[in-house]
Amino acid sequence: MRVIIAKDYDDMSKIAMQNLLGHMFLKKDRVNLSITAGSTPLRLYEMMIDEVKGKDYLKNVHYYNFDEIPHKVKKQEGVTMTDLRQYFYTPAQIPAEQIHVLDETNYSTQDKRIKDAGGLDAMLLGIGTDGHYCGNLPGTTRFSQYTVSIPCDDRIKSRIKKFYETEDDIPDTYVTMGPASVMAARHLILIANGTRKAEIMKTWFKTEIDINIPASILKLHPNITVIMDKDAASLL
Amino acid sequence: MRVIIAKDYDDMSKIAMQNLLGHMFLKKDRVNLSITAGSTPLRLYEMMIDEVKGKDYLKNVHYYNFDEIPHKVKKQEGVTMTDLRQYFYTPAQIPAEQIHVLDETNYSTQDKRIKDAGGLDAMLLGIGTDGHYCGNLPGTTRFSQYTVSIPCDDRIKSRIKKFYETEDDIPDTYVTMGPASVMAARHLILIANGTRKAEIMKTWFKTEIDINIPASILKLHPNITVIMDKDAASLL
Amino acid sequence: MRVIIAKDYDDMSKIAMQNLLGHMFLKKDRVNLSITAGSTPLRLYEMMIDEVKGKDYLKNVHYYNFDEIPHKVKKQEGVTMTDLRQYFYTPAQIPAEQIHVLDETNYSTQDKRIKDAGGLDAMLLGIGTDGHYCGNLPGTTRFSQYTVSIPCDDRIKSRIKKFYETEDDIPDTYVTMGPASVMAARHLILIANGTRKAEIMKTWFKTEIDINIPASILKLHPNITVIMDKDAASLL
Amino acid sequence: MRVIIAKDYDDMSKIAMQNLLGHMFLKKDRVNLSITAGSTPLRLYEMMIDEVKGKDYLKNVHYYNFDEIPHKVKKQEGVTMTDLRQYFYTPAQIPAEQIHVLDETNYSTQDKRIKDAGGLDAMLLGIGTDGHYCGNLPGTTRFSQYTVSIPCDDRIKSRIKKFYETEDDIPDTYVTMGPASVMAARHLILIANGTRKAEIMKTWFKTEIDINIPASILKLHPNITVIMDKDAASLL
Repeated sequence: MRVIIAKDYDDMSKIAMQNLLGHMFLKKDRVNLSITAGSTPLRLYEMMIDEVKGKDYLKNVHYYNFDEIPHKVKKQEGVTMTDLRQYFYTPAQIPAEQIHVLDETNYSTQDKRIKDAGGLDAMLLGIGTDGHYCGNLPGTTRFSQYTVSIPCDDRIKSRIKKFYETEDDIPDTYVTMGPASVMAARHLILIANGTRKAEIMKTWFKTEIDINIPASILKLHPNITVIMDKDAASLL
Repeated sequence: MRVIIAKDYDDMSKIAMQNLLGHMFLKKDRVNLSITAGSTPLRLYEMMIDEVKGKDYLKNVHYYNFDEIPHKVKKQEGVTMTDLRQYFYTPAQIPAEQIHVLDETNYSTQDKRIKDAGGLDAMLLGIGTDGHYCGNLPGTTRFSQYTVSIPCDDRIKSRIKKFYETEDDIPDTYVTMGPASVMAARHLILIANGTRKAEIMKTWFKTEIDINIPASILKLHPNITVIMDKDAASLL
Repeated sequence: MRVIIAKDYDDMSKIAMQNLLGHMFLKKDRVNLSITAGSTPLRLYEMMIDEVKGKDYLKNVHYYNFDEIPHKVKKQEGVTMTDLRQYFYTPAQIPAEQIHVLDETNYSTQDKRIKDAGGLDAMLLGIGTDGHYCGNLPGTTRFSQYTVSIPCDDRIKSRIKKFYETEDDIPDTYVTMGPASVMAARHLILIANGTRKAEIMKTWFKTEIDINIPASILKLHPNITVIMDKDAASLL
Repeated sequence: MRVIIAKDYDDMSKIAMQNLLGHMFLKKDRVNLSITAGSTPLRLYEMMIDEVKGKDYLKNVHYYNFDEIPHKVKKQEGVTMTDLRQYFYTPAQIPAEQIHVLDETNYSTQDKRIKDAGGLDAMLLGIGTDGHYCGNLPGTTRFSQYTVSIPCDDRIKSRIKKFYETEDDIPDTYVTMGPASVMAARHLILIANGTRKAEIMKTWFKTEIDINIPASILKLHPNITVIMDKDAASLL
């Protein structure tokens, strides 16, 4: 495990970007990345757009989404893809053939498609205050699971409600790469910033591997880089 | 995960050896291996002696023991080292400076010494019918632990009694690289042979990650090769 | 450069095989190898047949021929492919889709096809007493060339005459991966055996990079393993 | 070979920096880099200072100088080290133990010291309008040479005169890693900017491997990245 404490959010974002760009530049053939939606990587994507937009020499880089929360009624892409398009894929002008959709219709082949493409070189992951990562929320996946569809119980529905305009649009299931899918990547990059994440980062470093803190399993990956700003690291 | 079903014990031994020799030949600078005692690798070592004995071009290869059960009274090296010397290190004429002892006096620096030497390139692991590997027996280590000293309770003492001539020589503690130490290696090679191992291999592939089946965690390593003979694979 | 002096031809063959098997086992996704025809690797192939024949777990291994001398009249595959089929591909039961033909019709796309498949992981090369390797004979290719078609002048025709039953079957051109194609592989394995090769090996180690000794350029590859038996190394 | 055409000098500098930072971040244990003096990398170093200054998490990164022009009379470090200290090592606060001096007293062990430290992960190289790189000027080293001391003939003396305040301070010899030392690195990063370099870059891509254009040999490295700005690429 490599642990990097950045001085602030900008610095965390820049270092995480440099890790991703390192993969893009140092591997000459196809590079497979999986990147996260959410608020933590927003500054990173803002920075990275300049580095990748319209760059022919990065046409070897492929992006795989790792979870998706669909709309039940509305005819549009799910929450994760909408978010990633808005903050990265579209402004960065990533060609469609380099973006690999994950959704309800193809989740069961996600692990095979990734494997057949040579496996993931790196995954960029955030962590929730409850210890979740991707769609691996407490009480959903078990450590041995690959990409799965998760039923949305009331707890999950209330949690994802914020993403929907009307209640009838909240889906009954969502999909996520499971712990076994994530652990199969060759490099994990876990980012966290802000005092709001200080408690979970303290917990993450101290805790036993525990299914109730889903991200705890990531501690056992042989090649994980944890990048936090000082605030997120303030309780260590 | 790569799964290889060999036709018999000889074939399993040969393929595992070819994996180890691959590490020795394909990396030009220092190669760090950790290899297992016990009965499963005996044929492998018998074969490998010829390939490594007196070979100057393999002086880049270092061996780290991963557990040790000491003698309490007798003045001699522990059970693991005695076994590895008898079946491999001595007949293969491995120079002393390429053998890295693990014992009660230095276990607390094992992980740092390995890290400072560049990390383990590969570990060769067996699996017990109870799902143990190295000294990670059910009821001993937790998944987050690195190299530790384990107290020998009555259950463990009765189990290791067979290694000792007199009861007063049975130790009160033994040492082992823990799950977190093992998961940090870049490649895990898990070997199993015989119908005696068929049940645990079936369990290993099917089980949830479960601390009561210590080896279950190894399923999540991004670069694990499982090599079984047909007998060990007969219940899959 | 890694230099291995084996005790005899059998030993050289075994070590070279272990290098090739290392590539096959240690890389989990597609492995691209290029292997040589000729007499030097005959024992290696004899040994390796047992290790790869009918092995499902090696279906990730692809073979690329690196030169071809066609028949001008006879309707049959060229000399290199005929040789490799006889001594390795056929007895080893390598599936057709894992064998990549090189011939007069497709040589101009050889480098691109290899690049698109992820590049060569390793090439097994012999060396001639005149310092040639693949079809890079003295006076044919320049160091900067990729895969090319070479006109057969009288000198070359007289040299390859032994492969043909009738003179009218001797071709006017042959094809070979050039120095730039070979240097692009990630690992070169150069094998030599017998006192007949002692003089050229001595020359190879001592010579300046010299287009008249085509193999001299291989000394500059950052990852080359030279495996000789004692006879071939006897003048070093 | 990977070829990247950046839009301007700043962009070339940034991409080259991202390649170097990729090495620093993606390898967890010791990273060995060799970086160039001269004017081409000045903006790169200016940018990179912020990324590495005072960063504990980059203490795994070691720097090896690749050439040195000493002072004959003046008691001070040579031209290359003085330059690298001024523009990078000192403002970037690189700890002394991470800087590896090359000079007249230790050049003969340079290749062995690098090899014993695990080899160079990457070299950052400029190219002269005459096709030189490091101290490999036309008419000095041959392709097969490792680190050497080169006598300064009148041509060389007149060329390096600009670095000295008085003529008696111009040395009789200088040292450089030779072509064989450079080709042994695992990754070469060749940078060029400005219309002044357009002609040599055109030549470099087109030329046969030619000792009179020393950098021509670098075309055969299996893992070279060429980063030019538009001006340097304007004649391609």
